[in-house]
Amino acid sequence: MKILKGKHSGFCFGVKRAIDMSFEIAAERSNGVVTLGPIIHNPQMIEKLESAGIPYIDEISELDSLNGVSTVIIRTHGIPRKDIDTLSERGVEIIDATCPFVKKAQDYARLLDENEYKVVVLGDREHPEVRGIMSFAGKNAIVVKDVSEYPDLTGRIGIIVQTTKHMGDLKALLPVAIKGAKELRVFNTICSSTDSKLKDVEDLASMVDIMLVVGGRNSANTTRLANLSRSLSVTTHHIETAREIESKWFKDVDTVGVTAGASTPDWIIDEVINRIKDIGG
Amino acid sequence: MKILKGKHSGFCFGVKRAIDMSFEIAAERSNGVVTLGPIIHNPQMIEKLESAGIPYIDEISELDSLNGVSTVIIRTHGIPRKDIDTLSERGVEIIDATCPFVKKAQDYARLLDENEYKVVVLGDREHPEVRGIMSFAGKNAIVVKDVSEYPDLTGRIGIIVQTTKHMGDLKALLPVAIKGAKELRVFNTICSSTDSKLKDVEDLASMVDIMLVVGGRNSANTTRLANLSRSLSVTTHHIETAREIESKWFKDVDTVGVTAGASTPDWIIDEVINRIKDIGG
Repeated sequence: MKILKGKHSGFCFGVKRAIDMSFEIAAERSNGVVTLGPIIHNPQMIEKLESAGIPYIDEISELDSLNGVSTVIIRTHGIPRKDIDTLSERGVEIIDATCPFVKKAQDYARLLDENEYKVVVLGDREHPEVRGIMSFAGKNAIVVKDVSEYPDLTGRIGIIVQTTKHMGDLKALLPVAIKGAKELRVFNTICSSTDSKLKDVEDLASMVDIMLVVGGRNSANTTRLANLSRSLSVTTHHIETAREIESKWFKDVDTVGVTAGASTPDWIIDEVINRIKDIGG
Repeated sequence: MKILKGKHSGFCFGVKRAIDMSFEIAAERSNGVVTLGPIIHNPQMIEKLESAGIPYIDEISELDSLNGVSTVIIRTHGIPRKDIDTLSERGVEIIDATCPFVKKAQDYARLLDENEYKVVVLGDREHPEVRGIMSFAGKNAIVVKDVSEYPDLTGRIGIIVQTTKHMGDLKALLPVAIKGAKELRVFNTICSSTDSKLKDVEDLASMVDIMLVVGGRNSANTTRLANLSRSLSVTTHHIETAREIESKWFKDVDTVGVTAGASTPDWIIDEVINRIKDIGG
Protein backbone atom coordinates (compact mmCIF):
# COMPACT_ATOMS: atom_id res chain seq x y z
CA MET A 1 0.00 0.00 0.00
CA LYS A 2 1.34 3.40 -0.98
CA ILE A 3 1.06 6.35 1.43
CA LEU A 4 1.05 9.91 0.08
CA LYS A 5 1.40 12.64 2.69
CA GLY A 6 0.28 16.23 2.04
CA LYS A 7 3.36 18.44 1.68
CA HIS A 8 2.04 21.07 4.08
CA SER A 9 0.53 18.76 6.72
CA GLY A 10 0.63 19.75 10.35
CA PHE A 11 1.71 22.75 12.42
CA CYS A 12 1.48 26.16 10.85
CA PHE A 13 3.71 29.04 11.88
CA GLY A 14 1.31 30.45 14.48
CA VAL A 15 0.63 27.11 16.18
CA LYS A 16 4.31 26.16 16.30
CA ARG A 17 5.14 29.53 17.83
CA ALA A 18 2.41 29.21 20.50
CA ILE A 19 3.38 25.64 21.42
CA ASP A 20 7.10 26.54 21.60
CA MET A 21 6.30 29.56 23.81
CA SER A 22 4.17 27.43 26.13
CA PHE A 23 6.70 24.65 26.60
CA GLU A 24 9.45 27.20 27.23
CA ILE A 25 7.37 28.67 30.03
CA ALA A 26 6.53 25.19 31.33
CA ALA A 27 10.25 24.47 31.50
CA GLU A 28 10.90 27.68 33.47
CA ARG A 29 8.04 27.52 35.97
CA SER A 30 6.57 24.54 37.76
CA ASN A 31 3.15 26.12 38.28
CA GLY A 32 1.02 29.25 38.24
CA VAL A 33 0.49 29.29 34.47
CA VAL A 34 -2.75 28.63 32.59
CA THR A 35 -4.01 29.24 29.06
CA LEU A 36 -7.33 31.00 28.51
CA GLY A 37 -9.19 28.47 26.36
CA PRO A 38 -7.32 25.58 24.72
CA ILE A 39 -4.21 27.16 23.19
CA ILE A 40 -4.78 25.25 19.93
CA HIS A 41 -7.61 23.01 18.73
CA ASN A 42 -5.90 19.66 19.34
CA PRO A 43 -7.02 17.69 22.42
CA GLN A 44 -3.92 15.45 22.48
CA MET A 45 -1.54 18.41 22.46
CA ILE A 46 -3.62 20.09 25.18
CA GLU A 47 -3.26 16.96 27.34
CA LYS A 48 0.49 17.04 26.82
CA LEU A 49 0.64 20.68 27.83
CA GLU A 50 -1.44 19.95 30.92
CA SER A 51 0.99 17.17 31.87
CA ALA A 52 3.80 19.71 31.53
CA GLY A 53 2.03 21.91 34.11
CA ILE A 54 -0.07 24.26 31.97
CA PRO A 55 -3.80 23.51 32.14
CA TYR A 56 -6.44 25.66 30.51
CA ILE A 57 -9.40 27.53 31.90
CA ASP A 58 -12.57 28.32 29.93
CA GLU A 59 -13.49 31.54 31.73
CA ILE A 60 -11.46 34.21 33.46
CA SER A 61 -13.72 33.84 36.53
CA GLU A 62 -12.21 30.39 37.11
CA LEU A 63 -9.09 32.20 38.31
CA ASP A 64 -11.00 32.97 41.54
CA SER A 65 -11.04 29.34 42.59
CA LEU A 66 -7.48 28.60 41.49
CA ASN A 67 -4.56 29.28 43.78
CA GLY A 68 -1.53 31.26 42.76
CA VAL A 69 -2.10 31.73 39.04
CA SER A 70 0.28 34.53 38.07
CA THR A 71 0.44 34.07 34.31
CA VAL A 72 -2.17 33.62 31.59
CA ILE A 73 -1.22 32.59 28.08
CA ILE A 74 -3.53 33.83 25.31
CA ARG A 75 -4.47 31.13 22.79
CA THR A 76 -3.46 31.20 19.08
CA HIS A 77 -6.99 32.25 18.09
CA GLY A 78 -6.80 35.40 20.21
CA ILE A 79 -9.38 36.53 22.74
CA PRO A 80 -11.93 39.35 22.85
CA ARG A 81 -10.69 42.82 23.74
CA LYS A 82 -12.67 42.97 26.98
CA ASP A 83 -11.03 39.74 28.20
CA ILE A 84 -7.60 41.32 27.73
CA ASP A 85 -8.80 44.32 29.74
CA THR A 86 -10.18 42.06 32.49
CA LEU A 87 -6.91 40.14 32.71
CA SER A 88 -4.95 43.39 32.88
CA GLU A 89 -7.16 44.67 35.69
CA ARG A 90 -6.57 41.47 37.61
CA GLY A 91 -2.85 42.17 37.44
CA VAL A 92 -1.84 38.78 36.03
CA GLU A 93 1.05 38.56 33.60
CA ILE A 94 -0.24 38.12 30.06
CA ILE A 95 1.75 36.10 27.55
CA ASP A 96 0.27 36.67 24.13
CA ALA A 97 0.48 33.58 21.93
CA THR A 98 -2.12 34.95 19.50
CA CYS A 99 -1.07 33.97 15.98
CA PRO A 100 0.53 37.07 14.41
CA PHE A 101 -1.73 36.65 11.36
CA VAL A 102 -4.83 36.64 13.57
CA LYS A 103 -3.44 39.69 15.35
CA LYS A 104 -3.21 41.40 11.96
CA ALA A 105 -6.84 40.60 11.25
CA GLN A 106 -7.74 42.17 14.64
CA ASP A 107 -5.69 45.28 13.74
CA TYR A 108 -7.44 45.59 10.36
CA ALA A 109 -10.83 45.25 12.08
CA ARG A 110 -9.92 48.14 14.37
CA LEU A 111 -8.58 50.22 11.46
CA LEU A 112 -11.80 49.72 9.49
CA ASP A 113 -13.96 50.56 12.49
CA GLU A 114 -11.94 53.66 13.33
CA ASN A 115 -12.30 54.83 9.73
CA GLU A 116 -16.07 54.34 9.88
CA TYR A 117 -16.48 51.44 7.51
CA LYS A 118 -19.30 48.97 8.02
CA VAL A 119 -17.25 45.92 9.00
CA VAL A 120 -18.10 42.44 7.71
CA VAL A 121 -16.19 39.43 9.00
CA LEU A 122 -16.38 36.41 6.72
CA GLY A 123 -16.16 33.42 9.05
CA ASP A 124 -17.81 31.23 11.65
CA ARG A 125 -19.40 33.41 14.33
CA GLU A 126 -18.91 30.73 17.02
CA HIS A 127 -15.19 30.34 16.39
CA PRO A 128 -12.96 31.95 19.03
CA GLU A 129 -10.84 33.65 16.35
CA VAL A 130 -13.92 35.37 14.92
CA ARG A 131 -15.20 36.32 18.38
CA GLY A 132 -11.83 37.93 19.02
CA ILE A 133 -11.77 39.80 15.69
CA MET A 134 -15.36 40.96 16.19
CA SER A 135 -14.43 42.60 19.49
CA PHE A 136 -12.20 44.99 17.52
CA ALA A 137 -14.63 45.59 14.66
CA GLY A 138 -17.04 48.00 16.31
CA LYS A 139 -20.61 47.67 17.45
CA ASN A 140 -22.14 47.62 13.94
CA ALA A 141 -19.92 44.82 12.64
CA ILE A 142 -21.51 41.64 11.36
CA VAL A 143 -20.36 38.08 10.68
CA VAL A 144 -21.38 36.16 7.56
CA LYS A 145 -20.42 32.52 7.10
CA ASP A 146 -20.73 32.80 3.32
CA VAL A 147 -22.27 34.89 0.57
CA SER A 148 -25.77 33.51 1.29
CA GLU A 149 -25.79 35.39 4.61
CA TYR A 150 -24.66 38.71 3.17
CA PRO A 151 -27.28 41.44 3.71
CA ASP A 152 -27.87 44.46 1.46
CA LEU A 153 -25.22 46.88 2.65
CA THR A 154 -24.48 50.28 1.17
CA GLY A 155 -21.83 52.94 1.61
CA ARG A 156 -18.27 52.16 2.74
CA ILE A 157 -17.85 48.50 3.47
CA GLY A 158 -14.80 46.79 5.00
CA ILE A 159 -14.23 43.04 4.84
CA ILE A 160 -11.94 40.82 6.91
CA VAL A 161 -11.71 37.05 6.65
CA GLN A 162 -11.21 34.32 9.25
CA THR A 163 -7.62 33.15 8.61
CA THR A 164 -8.70 29.57 7.91
CA LYS A 165 -11.46 30.39 5.41
CA HIS A 166 -11.40 29.02 1.88
CA MET A 167 -10.43 31.55 -0.81
CA GLY A 168 -13.47 30.45 -2.81
CA ASP A 169 -15.76 31.88 -0.13
CA LEU A 170 -14.10 35.29 -0.38
CA LYS A 171 -14.16 35.26 -4.19
CA ALA A 172 -17.89 34.49 -4.14
CA LEU A 173 -18.61 37.31 -1.69
CA LEU A 174 -16.98 40.22 -3.54
CA PRO A 175 -19.26 40.54 -6.61
CA VAL A 176 -22.25 40.64 -4.26
CA ALA A 177 -20.68 43.05 -1.79
CA ILE A 178 -19.65 45.59 -4.47
CA LYS A 179 -23.25 45.95 -5.66
CA GLY A 180 -24.40 48.48 -3.07
CA ALA A 181 -20.94 49.70 -2.02
CA LYS A 182 -19.50 53.10 -2.79
CA GLU A 183 -16.21 51.79 -1.47
CA LEU A 184 -15.21 48.21 -0.72
CA ARG A 185 -12.03 47.66 1.27
CA VAL A 186 -11.02 44.05 1.65
CA PHE A 187 -8.19 42.72 3.77
CA ASN A 188 -7.36 39.26 2.51
CA THR A 189 -6.46 37.79 5.88
CA ILE A 190 -6.69 34.19 4.72
CA CYS A 191 -3.51 32.48 5.90
CA SER A 192 -1.31 31.07 3.13
CA SER A 193 -0.85 27.94 5.28
CA THR A 194 -4.59 27.25 4.99
CA ASP A 195 -4.46 27.66 1.24
CA SER A 196 -1.43 25.36 0.90
CA LYS A 197 -3.12 22.61 2.91
CA LEU A 198 -6.30 22.85 0.84
CA LYS A 199 -4.18 22.75 -2.32
CA ASP A 200 -2.52 19.56 -0.99
CA VAL A 201 -5.93 17.91 -0.64
CA GLU A 202 -6.85 18.90 -4.20
CA ASP A 203 -3.57 17.50 -5.52
CA LEU A 204 -3.85 14.23 -3.54
CA ALA A 205 -7.54 13.65 -4.30
CA SER A 206 -6.96 12.38 -7.84
CA MET A 207 -4.14 10.05 -6.76
CA VAL A 208 -5.53 8.23 -3.70
CA ASP A 209 -8.27 5.69 -2.95
CA ILE A 210 -8.98 6.97 0.56
CA MET A 211 -7.94 10.05 2.53
CA LEU A 212 -7.15 10.24 6.25
CA VAL A 213 -7.41 13.77 7.61
CA VAL A 214 -5.74 14.02 11.02
CA GLY A 215 -6.60 16.65 13.60
CA GLY A 216 -8.89 17.88 16.36
CA ARG A 217 -12.59 17.50 15.73
CA ASN A 218 -12.89 21.04 17.11
CA SER A 219 -10.33 22.31 14.57
CA ALA A 220 -11.97 24.46 11.91
CA ASN A 221 -9.17 24.11 9.42
CA THR A 222 -8.92 20.31 9.82
CA THR A 223 -12.69 19.98 9.34
CA ARG A 224 -12.41 22.11 6.20
CA LEU A 225 -9.73 19.77 4.78
CA ALA A 226 -12.00 16.77 5.41
CA ASN A 227 -15.00 18.50 3.82
CA LEU A 228 -12.99 19.49 0.76
CA SER A 229 -11.73 15.91 0.37
CA ARG A 230 -15.29 14.55 0.56
CA SER A 231 -16.51 17.13 -1.94
CA LEU A 232 -13.89 15.75 -4.36
CA SER A 233 -15.55 12.31 -4.05
CA VAL A 234 -12.77 10.71 -2.04
CA THR A 235 -13.71 8.36 0.82
CA THR A 236 -12.50 10.40 3.78
CA HIS A 237 -11.96 9.70 7.49
CA HIS A 238 -11.38 12.60 9.88
CA ILE A 239 -9.47 11.12 12.83
CA GLU A 240 -7.77 12.59 15.88
CA THR A 241 -5.34 9.75 16.54
CA ALA A 242 -4.03 6.46 15.08
CA ARG A 243 -6.18 4.51 17.54
CA GLU A 244 -9.31 5.36 15.55
CA ILE A 245 -8.05 3.71 12.38
CA GLU A 246 -9.93 0.56 11.33
CA SER A 247 -8.32 -2.15 9.16
CA LYS A 248 -11.44 -2.61 7.06
CA TRP A 249 -11.03 0.88 5.60
CA PHE A 250 -8.08 -0.39 3.56
CA LYS A 251 -9.80 -3.28 1.72
CA ASP A 252 -8.89 -3.03 -2.01
CA VAL A 253 -7.02 0.21 -1.33
CA ASP A 254 -3.77 0.80 -3.22
CA THR A 255 -2.98 4.37 -2.23
CA VAL A 256 -3.79 6.26 0.99
CA GLY A 257 -3.63 10.03 1.32
CA VAL A 258 -2.70 11.49 4.69
CA THR A 259 -3.03 15.14 5.56
CA ALA A 260 -3.33 17.05 8.83
CA GLY A 261 -4.63 20.37 10.12
CA ALA A 262 -2.56 23.32 11.29
CA SER A 263 -2.90 22.24 14.93
CA THR A 264 -1.90 18.59 14.49
CA PRO A 265 1.52 17.74 15.97
CA ASP A 266 4.01 15.67 13.96
CA TRP A 267 4.07 12.80 16.48
CA ILE A 268 0.36 12.18 15.86
CA ILE A 269 0.86 12.23 12.07
CA ASP A 270 3.80 9.80 12.44
CA GLU A 271 1.72 7.42 14.56
CA VAL A 272 -1.01 7.47 11.90
CA ILE A 273 1.47 6.67 9.14
CA ASN A 274 3.05 3.86 11.15
CA ARG A 275 -0.35 2.36 11.88
CA ILE A 276 -1.23 2.38 8.16
CA LYS A 277 2.09 0.71 7.39
CA ASP A 278 1.33 -1.98 10.00
CA ILE A 279 -2.04 -2.68 8.40
CA GLY A 280 -0.66 -2.55 4.84
CA GLY A 281 1.94 -5.18 5.78
CA MET B 1 -46.83 51.06 -34.01
CA LYS B 2 -46.09 51.35 -30.32
CA ILE B 3 -43.07 53.33 -29.12
CA LEU B 4 -41.52 52.58 -25.72
CA LYS B 5 -38.95 55.09 -24.50
CA GLY B 6 -36.35 54.21 -21.86
CA LYS B 7 -37.21 55.97 -18.62
CA HIS B 8 -33.70 57.31 -18.11
CA SER B 9 -32.91 58.30 -21.70
CA GLY B 10 -30.82 61.33 -22.40
CA PHE B 11 -28.81 63.86 -20.43
CA CYS B 12 -27.28 62.77 -17.16
CA PHE B 13 -26.59 65.17 -14.30
CA GLY B 14 -22.99 65.91 -15.33
CA VAL B 15 -23.81 66.56 -18.99
CA LYS B 16 -26.78 68.79 -18.18
CA ARG B 17 -24.61 70.81 -15.78
CA ALA B 18 -21.82 71.25 -18.35
CA ILE B 19 -24.20 72.27 -21.14
CA ASP B 20 -26.04 74.72 -18.87
CA MET B 21 -22.72 76.23 -17.74
CA SER B 22 -21.57 76.62 -21.34
CA PHE B 23 -24.72 78.30 -22.64
CA GLU B 24 -24.75 80.66 -19.67
CA ILE B 25 -21.24 81.75 -20.58
CA ALA B 26 -22.19 82.00 -24.26
CA ALA B 27 -25.04 84.33 -23.28
CA GLU B 28 -22.66 86.53 -21.26
CA ARG B 29 -19.76 86.79 -23.68
CA SER B 30 -19.77 87.08 -27.43
CA ASN B 31 -16.32 85.53 -27.93
CA GLY B 32 -13.03 84.48 -26.36
CA VAL B 33 -14.32 81.17 -24.97
CA VAL B 34 -13.39 77.64 -26.16
CA THR B 35 -13.75 74.16 -24.73
CA LEU B 36 -10.72 71.86 -24.58
CA GLY B 37 -11.96 68.83 -26.49
CA PRO B 38 -15.67 68.43 -27.31
CA ILE B 39 -17.47 69.22 -24.04
CA ILE B 40 -19.68 66.13 -24.44
CA HIS B 41 -19.68 63.27 -26.96
CA ASN B 42 -22.54 64.53 -29.12
CA PRO B 43 -21.63 66.13 -32.47
CA GLN B 44 -25.04 67.84 -32.92
CA MET B 45 -24.82 69.52 -29.52
CA ILE B 46 -21.24 70.56 -30.23
CA GLU B 47 -22.39 72.23 -33.47
CA LYS B 48 -25.07 74.11 -31.53
CA LEU B 49 -22.55 75.29 -28.99
CA GLU B 50 -20.22 76.43 -31.77
CA SER B 51 -23.09 78.43 -33.33
CA ALA B 52 -23.58 80.04 -29.92
CA GLY B 53 -19.96 81.19 -30.02
CA ILE B 54 -18.08 78.44 -28.18
CA PRO B 55 -15.99 76.25 -30.49
CA TYR B 56 -13.64 73.53 -29.27
CA ILE B 57 -9.92 73.02 -29.67
CA ASP B 58 -8.22 69.61 -29.61
CA GLU B 59 -4.87 70.74 -28.23
CA ILE B 60 -3.83 73.58 -25.94
CA SER B 61 -1.22 74.62 -28.52
CA GLU B 62 -4.05 75.71 -30.82
CA LEU B 63 -4.50 78.69 -28.51
CA ASP B 64 -1.34 80.17 -30.08
CA SER B 65 -3.07 80.68 -33.43
CA LEU B 66 -6.37 81.90 -31.97
CA ASN B 67 -6.88 85.52 -31.12
CA GLY B 68 -8.17 86.71 -27.78
CA VAL B 69 -9.13 83.44 -26.08
CA SER B 70 -9.42 84.35 -22.43
CA THR B 71 -11.47 81.41 -21.13
CA VAL B 72 -11.21 77.64 -21.51
CA ILE B 73 -14.04 75.32 -20.44
CA ILE B 74 -12.96 71.86 -19.31
CA ARG B 75 -15.07 69.07 -20.83
CA THR B 76 -17.33 66.75 -18.79
CA HIS B 77 -14.79 63.91 -19.09
CA GLY B 78 -12.10 65.95 -17.36
CA ILE B 79 -8.57 66.54 -18.69
CA PRO B 80 -5.13 65.32 -17.61
CA ARG B 81 -3.46 67.06 -14.70
CA LYS B 82 -0.62 68.45 -16.80
CA ASP B 83 -3.12 70.14 -19.15
CA ILE B 84 -4.66 71.95 -16.18
CA ASP B 85 -1.15 73.07 -15.19
CA THR B 86 -0.40 74.23 -18.74
CA LEU B 87 -3.64 76.23 -18.89
CA SER B 88 -2.89 77.82 -15.52
CA GLU B 89 0.58 78.81 -16.68
CA ARG B 90 -0.90 80.42 -19.77
CA GLY B 91 -3.02 82.59 -17.50
CA VAL B 92 -6.36 81.80 -19.13
CA GLU B 93 -9.49 81.60 -17.01
CA ILE B 94 -10.45 77.96 -16.45
CA ILE B 95 -14.12 77.00 -16.12
CA ASP B 96 -14.29 73.46 -14.89
CA ALA B 97 -17.27 71.58 -16.32
CA THR B 98 -15.78 68.20 -15.37
CA CYS B 99 -18.63 65.95 -14.21
CA PRO B 100 -18.52 65.93 -10.38
CA PHE B 101 -18.60 62.11 -10.46
CA VAL B 102 -15.58 61.99 -12.76
CA LYS B 103 -13.87 64.49 -10.47
CA LYS B 104 -14.49 62.09 -7.59
CA ALA B 105 -12.88 59.27 -9.54
CA GLN B 106 -9.85 61.54 -10.10
CA ASP B 107 -9.73 62.31 -6.37
CA TYR B 108 -9.87 58.59 -5.47
CA ALA B 109 -7.08 57.90 -7.96
CA ARG B 110 -4.92 60.49 -6.22
CA LEU B 111 -5.85 59.16 -2.77
CA LEU B 112 -4.88 55.61 -3.77
CA ASP B 113 -1.61 56.75 -5.31
CA GLU B 114 -0.71 58.91 -2.28
CA ASN B 115 -1.38 55.91 -0.03
CA GLU B 116 0.90 53.72 -2.14
CA TYR B 117 -1.64 51.36 -3.64
CA LYS B 118 -1.01 49.88 -7.07
CA VAL B 119 -3.76 51.63 -8.99
CA VAL B 120 -5.85 49.82 -11.58
CA VAL B 121 -8.37 51.75 -13.67
CA LEU B 122 -11.07 49.57 -15.20
CA GLY B 123 -11.98 51.31 -18.44
CA ASP B 124 -11.03 52.22 -22.00
CA ARG B 125 -7.49 53.59 -22.10
CA GLU B 126 -8.25 55.78 -25.14
CA HIS B 127 -11.25 57.50 -23.54
CA PRO B 128 -10.60 61.08 -22.36
CA GLU B 129 -12.15 60.35 -18.95
CA VAL B 130 -9.71 57.49 -18.36
CA ARG B 131 -6.76 59.54 -19.62
CA GLY B 132 -7.74 62.21 -17.10
CA ILE B 133 -8.12 59.76 -14.21
CA MET B 134 -4.80 58.10 -15.08
CA SER B 135 -3.01 61.41 -14.74
CA PHE B 136 -3.91 61.37 -11.03
CA ALA B 137 -3.20 57.68 -10.45
CA GLY B 138 0.59 57.73 -10.27
CA LYS B 139 3.26 56.45 -12.58
CA ASN B 140 2.67 52.75 -11.85
CA ALA B 141 -1.05 52.83 -12.55
CA ILE B 142 -2.46 50.61 -15.26
CA VAL B 143 -5.68 50.47 -17.28
CA VAL B 144 -7.52 47.22 -17.96
CA LYS B 145 -10.56 47.13 -20.24
CA ASP B 146 -11.87 43.96 -18.58
CA VAL B 147 -10.79 41.02 -16.45
CA SER B 148 -8.99 39.37 -19.39
CA GLU B 149 -6.36 42.14 -19.30
CA TYR B 150 -5.75 41.96 -15.55
CA PRO B 151 -2.13 41.03 -14.77
CA ASP B 152 -0.92 39.12 -11.70
CA LEU B 153 -0.70 41.87 -9.10
CA THR B 154 0.19 41.40 -5.45
CA GLY B 155 0.22 43.56 -2.35
CA ARG B 156 -2.08 46.54 -1.88
CA ILE B 157 -4.26 47.09 -4.91
CA GLY B 158 -6.63 49.99 -5.53
CA ILE B 159 -9.33 49.91 -8.20
CA ILE B 160 -11.28 52.75 -9.81
CA VAL B 161 -13.81 52.39 -12.60
CA GLN B 162 -14.65 54.53 -15.63
CA THR B 163 -18.01 56.09 -14.69
CA THR B 164 -19.77 54.61 -17.73
CA LYS B 165 -18.53 51.03 -17.25
CA HIS B 166 -20.95 48.14 -16.83
CA MET B 167 -21.26 46.79 -13.27
CA GLY B 168 -20.81 43.27 -14.66
CA ASP B 169 -17.23 44.13 -15.66
CA LEU B 170 -16.41 45.22 -12.13
CA LYS B 171 -18.07 42.16 -10.61
CA ALA B 172 -16.04 39.88 -12.87
CA LEU B 173 -12.77 41.62 -11.97
CA LEU B 174 -12.90 41.37 -8.17
CA PRO B 175 -12.58 37.59 -7.66
CA VAL B 176 -9.48 37.66 -9.87
CA ALA B 177 -7.97 40.77 -8.30
CA ILE B 178 -8.33 39.45 -4.72
CA LYS B 179 -6.23 36.39 -5.52
CA GLY B 180 -2.80 37.92 -5.08
CA ALA B 181 -3.91 40.93 -3.04
CA LYS B 182 -3.17 41.48 0.63
CA GLU B 183 -5.57 44.40 0.49
CA LEU B 184 -8.04 45.32 -2.23
CA ARG B 185 -9.60 48.78 -2.09
CA VAL B 186 -12.28 49.39 -4.65
CA PHE B 187 -14.01 52.68 -5.35
CA ASN B 188 -17.20 51.91 -7.19
CA THR B 189 -17.20 55.01 -9.37
CA ILE B 190 -19.74 53.65 -11.84
CA CYS B 191 -22.36 56.36 -12.26
CA SER B 192 -25.88 55.38 -11.27
CA SER B 193 -27.13 57.09 -14.43
CA THR B 194 -25.17 54.56 -16.51
CA ASP B 195 -26.67 51.71 -14.54
CA SER B 196 -30.22 53.05 -14.90
CA LYS B 197 -29.85 53.39 -18.67
CA LEU B 198 -28.50 49.86 -19.01
CA LYS B 199 -31.36 48.61 -16.85
CA ASP B 200 -33.82 50.40 -19.19
CA VAL B 201 -32.39 48.48 -22.15
CA GLU B 202 -32.73 45.18 -20.26
CA ASP B 203 -36.34 46.00 -19.39
CA LEU B 204 -37.25 47.12 -22.92
CA ALA B 205 -35.48 44.25 -24.70
CA SER B 206 -38.18 41.68 -23.98
CA MET B 207 -40.99 44.05 -25.03
CA VAL B 208 -39.79 45.46 -28.35
CA ASP B 209 -39.18 44.21 -31.90
CA ILE B 210 -36.40 46.67 -32.67
CA MET B 211 -34.37 49.13 -30.63
CA LEU B 212 -33.15 52.57 -31.66
CA VAL B 213 -30.26 53.80 -29.55
CA VAL B 214 -29.73 57.52 -30.04
CA GLY B 215 -26.43 59.28 -29.38
CA GLY B 216 -22.96 60.21 -30.59
CA ARG B 217 -20.99 57.45 -32.26
CA ASN B 218 -18.05 58.68 -30.17
CA SER B 219 -20.11 58.31 -26.98
CA ALA B 220 -18.89 55.36 -24.86
CA ASN B 221 -22.08 55.06 -22.87
CA THR B 222 -24.34 55.20 -25.94
CA THR B 223 -22.25 52.53 -27.68
CA ARG B 224 -22.53 50.38 -24.55
CA LEU B 225 -26.34 50.67 -24.62
CA ALA B 226 -26.37 49.54 -28.26
CA ASN B 227 -24.01 46.62 -27.54
CA LEU B 228 -26.11 45.49 -24.58
CA SER B 229 -29.26 45.63 -26.71
CA ARG B 230 -27.61 43.52 -29.43
CA SER B 231 -26.36 41.02 -26.84
CA LEU B 232 -30.00 40.56 -25.79
CA SER B 233 -30.84 39.50 -29.38
CA VAL B 234 -32.75 42.63 -30.28
CA THR B 235 -32.29 44.15 -33.76
CA THR B 236 -30.57 47.40 -32.87
CA HIS B 237 -29.72 50.62 -34.72
CA HIS B 238 -27.31 53.12 -33.19
CA ILE B 239 -28.19 56.49 -34.75
CA GLU B 240 -27.09 60.04 -34.11
CA THR B 241 -30.15 61.80 -35.57
CA ALA B 242 -33.62 61.15 -36.98
CA ARG B 243 -32.28 61.64 -40.51
CA GLU B 244 -30.56 58.23 -40.37
CA ILE B 245 -33.81 56.34 -39.80
CA GLU B 246 -34.90 54.11 -42.70
CA SER B 247 -38.55 53.14 -43.24
CA LYS B 248 -37.66 49.54 -44.09
CA TRP B 249 -36.49 48.93 -40.51
CA PHE B 250 -40.12 48.97 -39.37
CA LYS B 251 -41.52 46.25 -41.64
CA ASP B 252 -43.58 43.84 -39.49
CA VAL B 253 -42.61 45.78 -36.38
CA ASP B 254 -45.25 46.27 -33.68
CA THR B 255 -43.20 47.83 -30.93
CA VAL B 256 -40.10 50.07 -31.13
CA GLY B 257 -37.80 50.74 -28.20
CA VAL B 258 -36.05 54.11 -28.04
CA THR B 259 -33.25 54.92 -25.67
CA ALA B 260 -30.46 57.50 -25.64
CA GLY B 261 -27.04 58.02 -24.13
CA ALA B 262 -26.12 60.45 -21.37
CA SER B 263 -24.94 63.05 -23.89
CA THR B 264 -27.99 62.99 -26.18
CA PRO B 265 -30.14 66.16 -25.96
CA ASP B 266 -33.92 65.88 -25.66
CA TRP B 267 -34.59 67.65 -28.96
CA ILE B 268 -32.74 64.89 -30.83
CA ILE B 269 -34.74 62.19 -29.00
CA ASP B 270 -37.99 64.05 -29.77
CA GLU B 271 -37.10 64.26 -33.47
CA VAL B 272 -36.43 60.52 -33.52
CA ILE B 273 -39.78 59.75 -31.90
CA ASN B 274 -41.64 62.07 -34.28
CA ARG B 275 -39.94 60.45 -37.28
CA ILE B 276 -40.99 56.97 -36.09
CA LYS B 277 -44.55 58.22 -35.62
CA ASP B 278 -44.51 59.61 -39.18
CA ILE B 279 -43.41 56.23 -40.53
CA GLY B 280 -45.82 54.29 -38.35
CA GLY B 281 -48.69 56.38 -39.68
